[in-house]
Amino acid sequence: MTCGNFCDLTDFNHCRLIRLTKTGRRSLSHSISHSSTDSNSSGGSDAENPEDEVSPRDMQQINSKGNMDFCIKNIKLADFGRREIELAEDEMTALMALRKAAQGEKPLAAAKIVGCTHVTAQTAVLFETLKVLGAQCRWAACNIYSTQDEVAAALAEQDFPVFAWKGESEDDFWWCIDRCVNVEGWEPNMILDDGGDMTHWIYKKYPHLFKKVKGIVEESITGIHRLHQLSKAGKLCVPAINVNDSVTKQKFDNLYCCRESILDSLKKTTDIMFGGKQVAICGYGEVGKGCSAALKAMGSVVYVTEIDPICALQACMDGFRLAKLGDVVRHVDMVITCTGNKNVVVREHMDLMKNGCVVCNMGRSNTEIDVNSLQTPELVWQHVRAQVDHIIWPDGKRIVLLAEGRVLNLSSSTVPIYVLSITATTQALALIELFNAPEGRYKQDVYLLPKKLDEYVASLHLQTFDAHLTELTDEQAKYMGLSKYGPFKPSYYR
Amino acid sequence: MTCGNFCDLTDFNHCRLIRLTKTGRRSLSHSISHSSTDSNSSGGSDAENPEDEVSPRDMQQINSKGNMDFCIKNIKLADFGRREIELAEDEMTALMALRKAAQGEKPLAAAKIVGCTHVTAQTAVLFETLKVLGAQCRWAACNIYSTQDEVAAALAEQDFPVFAWKGESEDDFWWCIDRCVNVEGWEPNMILDDGGDMTHWIYKKYPHLFKKVKGIVEESITGIHRLHQLSKAGKLCVPAINVNDSVTKQKFDNLYCCRESILDSLKKTTDIMFGGKQVAICGYGEVGKGCSAALKAMGSVVYVTEIDPICALQACMDGFRLAKLGDVVRHVDMVITCTGNKNVVVREHMDLMKNGCVVCNMGRSNTEIDVNSLQTPELVWQHVRAQVDHIIWPDGKRIVLLAEGRVLNLSSSTVPIYVLSITATTQALALIELFNAPEGRYKQDVYLLPKKLDEYVASLHLQTFDAHLTELTDEQAKYMGLSKYGPFKPSYYR
Amino acid sequence: MTCGNFCDLTDFNHCRLIRLTKTGRRSLSHSISHSSTDSNSSGGSDAENPEDEVSPRDMQQINSKGNMDFCIKNIKLADFGRREIELAEDEMTALMALRKAAQGEKPLAAAKIVGCTHVTAQTAVLFETLKVLGAQCRWAACNIYSTQDEVAAALAEQDFPVFAWKGESEDDFWWCIDRCVNVEGWEPNMILDDGGDMTHWIYKKYPHLFKKVKGIVEESITGIHRLHQLSKAGKLCVPAINVNDSVTKQKFDNLYCCRESILDSLKKTTDIMFGGKQVAICGYGEVGKGCSAALKAMGSVVYVTEIDPICALQACMDGFRLAKLGDVVRHVDMVITCTGNKNVVVREHMDLMKNGCVVCNMGRSNTEIDVNSLQTPELVWQHVRAQVDHIIWPDGKRIVLLAEGRVLNLSSSTVPIYVLSITATTQALALIELFNAPEGRYKQDVYLLPKKLDEYVASLHLQTFDAHLTELTDEQAKYMGLSKYGPFKPSYYR
Amino acid sequence: MTCGNFCDLTDFNHCRLIRLTKTGRRSLSHSISHSSTDSNSSGGSDAENPEDEVSPRDMQQINSKGNMDFCIKNIKLADFGRREIELAEDEMTALMALRKAAQGEKPLAAAKIVGCTHVTAQTAVLFETLKVLGAQCRWAACNIYSTQDEVAAALAEQDFPVFAWKGESEDDFWWCIDRCVNVEGWEPNMILDDGGDMTHWIYKKYPHLFKKVKGIVEESITGIHRLHQLSKAGKLCVPAINVNDSVTKQKFDNLYCCRESILDSLKKTTDIMFGGKQVAICGYGEVGKGCSAALKAMGSVVYVTEIDPICALQACMDGFRLAKLGDVVRHVDMVITCTGNKNVVVREHMDLMKNGCVVCNMGRSNTEIDVNSLQTPELVWQHVRAQVDHIIWPDGKRIVLLAEGRVLNLSSSTVPIYVLSITATTQALALIELFNAPEGRYKQDVYLLPKKLDEYVASLHLQTFDAHLTELTDEQAKYMGLSKYGPFKPSYYR
Repeated sequence: MTCGNFCDLTDFNHCRLIRLTKTGRRSLSHSISHSSTDSNSSGGSDAENPEDEVSPRDMQQINSKGNMDFCIKNIKLADFGRREIELAEDEMTALMALRKAAQGEKPLAAAKIVGCTHVTAQTAVLFETLKVLGAQCRWAACNIYSTQDEVAAALAEQDFPVFAWKGESEDDFWWCIDRCVNVEGWEPNMILDDGGDMTHWIYKKYPHLFKKVKGIVEESITGIHRLHQLSKAGKLCVPAINVNDSVTKQKFDNLYCCRESILDSLKKTTDIMFGGKQVAICGYGEVGKGCSAALKAMGSVVYVTEIDPICALQACMDGFRLAKLGDVVRHVDMVITCTGNKNVVVREHMDLMKNGCVVCNMGRSNTEIDVNSLQTPELVWQHVRAQVDHIIWPDGKRIVLLAEGRVLNLSSSTVPIYVLSITATTQALALIELFNAPEGRYKQDVYLLPKKLDEYVASLHLQTFDAHLTELTDEQAKYMGLSKYGPFKPSYYR
Repeated sequence: MTCGNFCDLTDFNHCRLIRLTKTGRRSLSHSISHSSTDSNSSGGSDAENPEDEVSPRDMQQINSKGNMDFCIKNIKLADFGRREIELAEDEMTALMALRKAAQGEKPLAAAKIVGCTHVTAQTAVLFETLKVLGAQCRWAACNIYSTQDEVAAALAEQDFPVFAWKGESEDDFWWCIDRCVNVEGWEPNMILDDGGDMTHWIYKKYPHLFKKVKGIVEESITGIHRLHQLSKAGKLCVPAINVNDSVTKQKFDNLYCCRESILDSLKKTTDIMFGGKQVAICGYGEVGKGCSAALKAMGSVVYVTEIDPICALQACMDGFRLAKLGDVVRHVDMVITCTGNKNVVVREHMDLMKNGCVVCNMGRSNTEIDVNSLQTPELVWQHVRAQVDHIIWPDGKRIVLLAEGRVLNLSSSTVPIYVLSITATTQALALIELFNAPEGRYKQDVYLLPKKLDEYVASLHLQTFDAHLTELTDEQAKYMGLSKYGPFKPSYYR
Repeated sequence: MTCGNFCDLTDFNHCRLIRLTKTGRRSLSHSISHSSTDSNSSGGSDAENPEDEVSPRDMQQINSKGNMDFCIKNIKLADFGRREIELAEDEMTALMALRKAAQGEKPLAAAKIVGCTHVTAQTAVLFETLKVLGAQCRWAACNIYSTQDEVAAALAEQDFPVFAWKGESEDDFWWCIDRCVNVEGWEPNMILDDGGDMTHWIYKKYPHLFKKVKGIVEESITGIHRLHQLSKAGKLCVPAINVNDSVTKQKFDNLYCCRESILDSLKKTTDIMFGGKQVAICGYGEVGKGCSAALKAMGSVVYVTEIDPICALQACMDGFRLAKLGDVVRHVDMVITCTGNKNVVVREHMDLMKNGCVVCNMGRSNTEIDVNSLQTPELVWQHVRAQVDHIIWPDGKRIVLLAEGRVLNLSSSTVPIYVLSITATTQALALIELFNAPEGRYKQDVYLLPKKLDEYVASLHLQTFDAHLTELTDEQAKYMGLSKYGPFKPSYYR
Repeated sequence: MTCGNFCDLTDFNHCRLIRLTKTGRRSLSHSISHSSTDSNSSGGSDAENPEDEVSPRDMQQINSKGNMDFCIKNIKLADFGRREIELAEDEMTALMALRKAAQGEKPLAAAKIVGCTHVTAQTAVLFETLKVLGAQCRWAACNIYSTQDEVAAALAEQDFPVFAWKGESEDDFWWCIDRCVNVEGWEPNMILDDGGDMTHWIYKKYPHLFKKVKGIVEESITGIHRLHQLSKAGKLCVPAINVNDSVTKQKFDNLYCCRESILDSLKKTTDIMFGGKQVAICGYGEVGKGCSAALKAMGSVVYVTEIDPICALQACMDGFRLAKLGDVVRHVDMVITCTGNKNVVVREHMDLMKNGCVVCNMGRSNTEIDVNSLQTPELVWQHVRAQVDHIIWPDGKRIVLLAEGRVLNLSSSTVPIYVLSITATTQALALIELFNAPEGRYKQDVYLLPKKLDEYVASLHLQTFDAHLTELTDEQAKYMGLSKYGPFKPSYYR
């Protein structure tokens, strides 16, 4: 088997620039820096502040220790960035606990990691943890807009080789990645990727490096999809761990987070009152369960649509009326899609909606609402405010379309730092696992995080809640046929 | 009895300028106009855009019909303002239903109303309704910042005598009020007030007018307080209706609205995740009940503090641990005051809080958290973003203080238009009631809206929910000793 | 004014024998004694065990101390009864706390109380408390079936003059009451009544006693109704306290208790699963709120019917669809009445119900379901088990009628001892209040328990929950205009 | 491979007689027949009514058609039994829908089924369905107490070969089973078992029959355990389907049913009020989730204990405090075990409990509470009523032990017929699947019901709720990579 050409497999250039990940967005919107109008959240429609300055590539900077192995916007922002990192450390207690627990052991000693993720205070806590655990790292941004320049400066000041700034050009983007990989005397042996661009670049330019690489840790759905395609094509030449689909992360991303962000997103975009409103929620998977529970709790009357009878029965037992969208769409005040499917809300439905009906998408894809079908001459689009359009029918009826049908909570809500902490901790453990795994444990395939480590991530995060786990006695462990230290459930358990 | 000097009784000048009412704030923040940084929501700390223009008072304008009896910013904004009013009409279905139901009857024919309220699209729907019901009106703003200039323009274009613009000086403010009252050939016989300034002005300058005035309708707590003081002092010389304390309005303001706005406000100011968090809620009245229910529904563990054993027992039966603040303050992640009392959270408590604890106030007064006690040299205040300060202890511990202890949801949440509609409908009905009441029904006192009208407000708002009331049969009405048309409960029923 | 003839006013003989109060029923069903098939719970339809023994009236008994001033079934049951009383003491911690707190002070010294209530372990704890607080008492049963004979024996053994046994004849009933009142050298000065029979008897036979009586404490709705009739007729000659309508008791009886007993009652009579079921709840007062919340929590889809727009709006905001019964009756699985009204569910509705629909009544009256309308030749009644009838239509459709339309939770659920404790504590405090009130505080009228004492009852019951009340500081009390010791809310506050 | 000796593998004789399954218990307790004190629910402690009659084996009966191939208590009960079956048909709409849908096709034509399950109205609906679908059946009871004699009579009257009566001896039990298998000219080819006794008997006595048997459908955990042991030992010689672990059945048995039965069971055994009570729930799997949600909804304060960090984190996010039992056991009012583990509540815990604490087990095994540790001389056991013992410490403290630590809802609650319907429908589909599966689809192993059939069971049960499933469009199915007709989720999806 040869390590194939990654870039043949996916049209990544198109998706990269508009790809939105939660990590990047969040840190911007609530940063102390105030610098952050969240430029990438609206899909590029808002104009950037023109920054007419010299490109960082053309301006060699030097830190207070005389080191120049980095490329960032402005080293003078370092103090400010350090404060932000310290604040993030305060909140990422689980990751800091891991750092503390493992710093003696140095499980990443000899690891040489190239990273390509958002460059924010939270990810800085991750990378500095990797360093404390023994790793050498080089780091580029996975998104041209999302870098917190002050954070990059703080890292550079500490001699961390970071290549990232807010407002990179596409050429800059690849240049930065290349600077992480292509360095005299440096042979990376681990890849930490978010979107697959670093992996792609190495496949394309330096495939020989894969001889030394012990594994890839990938966070994003897009990146995992690309790895699976490589794997199917027989071209994946190292093991990879998919950190996106760990149980802990999934439950938080889909159920717990959406339970909060559906409310948040709706309030940030409309001034609707939830009490007494009738809502149709399409899909009763984890996202649909979270949204339904939240709106029910706020006093809405929720109808659920489903295709899967088992999920449908769960909706019934949870007290929701199960209906077809066409049967309730005339009288509901909101329609929320959570299916992962396409064309769930179509023009025919929207023609039937009552005046003022709010339509939005909390699902995975941007195709759940057939927004294209609204691009017809007889309908008037009125852009009301960020993320909100009124679509006006000839008879004056208007529906309120949020985020143009794109995933709503990516655009209009913030991701709690708690969820970022789960992701970062999972990434760190996945790197440790792959780097230290005995020969043969992992083949050239895409793996989930082992259940036991997934449980460990959860246990680190329990501490925030002043929560106390019970330990099995020896007798109980034997009775249950379990190790006292887990895993406690089969790997498929959700 | 003589009609006394209103201004002796209360130091209204001080409170007027910083007084925040929900009505004003809301319409700004979600206006189509985009013009609205909510300048008054942060208590004056944000700088105003300098508007170096000529004062409206110095610039006579004329509408398309040749009318000049108004004073506003810019008559050219009329079309835009009309669109906003039409949007508001769409949403204020209950008030529009009342308009339609009563327009034949014209219950306000011969009423001459002077109004002093926020001037927004929603209140415009109210005033235009009063006009349709037969009243003549003159209208000034009750807040120097809250006027939507385009709405004022739309009214002026329709020959409505409105005197208001965004950014009035204090002198402007009283000048506008005076222009409503002091007009040749105009003797007002009804007052619609929000804060008591119009009432005050007439007491002070034109007390003789009270001979003709049939009543005052007052919305704000401040204004009601002033009326009660007048009444106690024997100086109230006309009946007044307190629309703030009607059952319908109270339930929405305190219970249903807070249930939503506590979540909204916290998400808009912090990126806290509610799930698993421990929260102390001080006070279990309607506001406390709403906040507790909402946070419990989002997966928080809620502790309640109370002084009243009956409310305390309700908290227990609703599944909350009842505790003293001092006993739980060390380990909670948030403290929310909802008491109406002062110094509920004091320095001693804040000294005990853990790092990162969020402290905020949802109660009525701004004194529930003893913020002054934090103004000591050893504590560092760090202003993090709008509405958010970090207070840092010498050992590095920081607490997160929201809105500087002022009422949180007034600053950080929007009031749903539904609640504005309840207020406006209640005001209209109170005006009709006072204007048409037979001699002797109302004395020179402050009244609540009659229960039957309160029920009518509720019934108008039910229509939004496609809700169907049951009617008593004759036999049932007799059995219950009730009229078929209400009131159905004693007046004290909540 | 003369003290009138009580018996003219109400036809009490009819209602007494079938009157069911919660107090009596409960203690029977869960007694240790096993003796208790709850004979009165099914409205007399079950046959009594024939008890062929000698009547207690014909069999003089004597206790171990030589005392004979009592009349009960069997003094030998005393030890067993004492155990039951001790168990009840364990659970009635609030009443025991009151006993302990006041035993030094003896606030009922010189009180001579005649009581007519159920004679059970719980009421024994009340009467023994009255004794500890200084009172002399004589006690008869208010129900011919509900006496726990072993408890009566335990009291008699302690020289308590008690006149009651299970299975009294009507003649016995009045004889026992008379033995409490008509005793040489005994002039009662307080009446503790449950149903009004004791009061009636004194009015009828010994009206002169009212000169000494300081007051009446009445628990039952029936008794209060009779007192109000007396009062209206100008014939009430002493003050009375209505303990049924105290805030604490009402909230527990109507909201908290029903929230649990609706589930309990339905499970005890049917094997319906709540999840996914559609339920119509008629009435959204406290009982309706409790039932709706419970069924919603169990996964039912609940529709609410209401006549009062304010309660209707509350239902909407709590997430319930408001409908007319006729519009939903075809497709619901259950109909539950909670209105206090009559003929809420009529034959026309029942004709429309689907096969298997369950119909029951949680309201106050037994007339909410028009059961008489089902007594027609074409319908077949099938008695399925206790409290359950199937009514079968000619086409085979059957509806499931519970408790023949009588109040369901009185028949099919138990009253938690916690609620009995609230009643008993309220009765004790009402007696203390009336007995010690200064001249003039109470007129010849029916009063509610003063708010402050109501709050005290609540505070005593908080202790069970390990709940900690906050105390006002002096400064706060002043700011709020309250006493530090309550009352904290206006008397009408619910 | 030879078909091994089943009886060597498990000590089934011991467990059979005390084995309780939900199916048997339920139908007794709510039967129209009134005959049913549920004699086996209390583990044998209640005395049986002596039935001095002739054994059915000694009394040849004949039905109205002259058929004698059955052995039951009394053929005269047939009419009454038929009514019960018809009532059950009314409620088991899903199974009846399957009967109707498949009766034309006759998917079980040529199937010869021997059944060994409870003999009740509900299982009669299953067996008569099998007959309608083409099968020949012979049927014995799997429990010596649970047979509804009138139902057996109704079946016998319809020429159904049934061998079962209430109160069989052990010898009778095996004789009945043998009469199903060992009949001239009858070679069964399918086994429907509940507990494994039929399978055992054939293994032991007629192993040659397995050459013709196409499969075994087993419902009980015990039976499945025995099959797995056979399989591990290489002695299972036909495929078996485990119907207990289908997704639909599991969700209902563990989550939805327990959510209701925990409340039901506690109310039937104690008169505890849930509101305000503190409860420790050990284990946060499906059962623990159901119990926690129910008690929280009733106003209890719930603490959860867990060993698995992922379940623990879910408990936190659902708003429960995670604690060790030892840390909260002093102050809780109830402890409920839901772990499947042993010795979760031990003597040390019970020594610390407060007076009146209720202890019970909702888990799978009977060993979760170490009841043996309470069998010491210093503790007094007081049997208070069915399922309730007080254990009294020397200092007078008593704890309330329910069902002697056995699984509570098996003893004290009823299983809704809805759940029985799910089981029966699953059994029917499993029989159809195994009987019609093409050669090679199933090996000699234990299988779960295929996901698609599991979904079909769910869809049949949706109809009860008037629930409407959405169908995938062709385009959507393609987009999702799914068949339009399912399965919609991977087989491990819960």
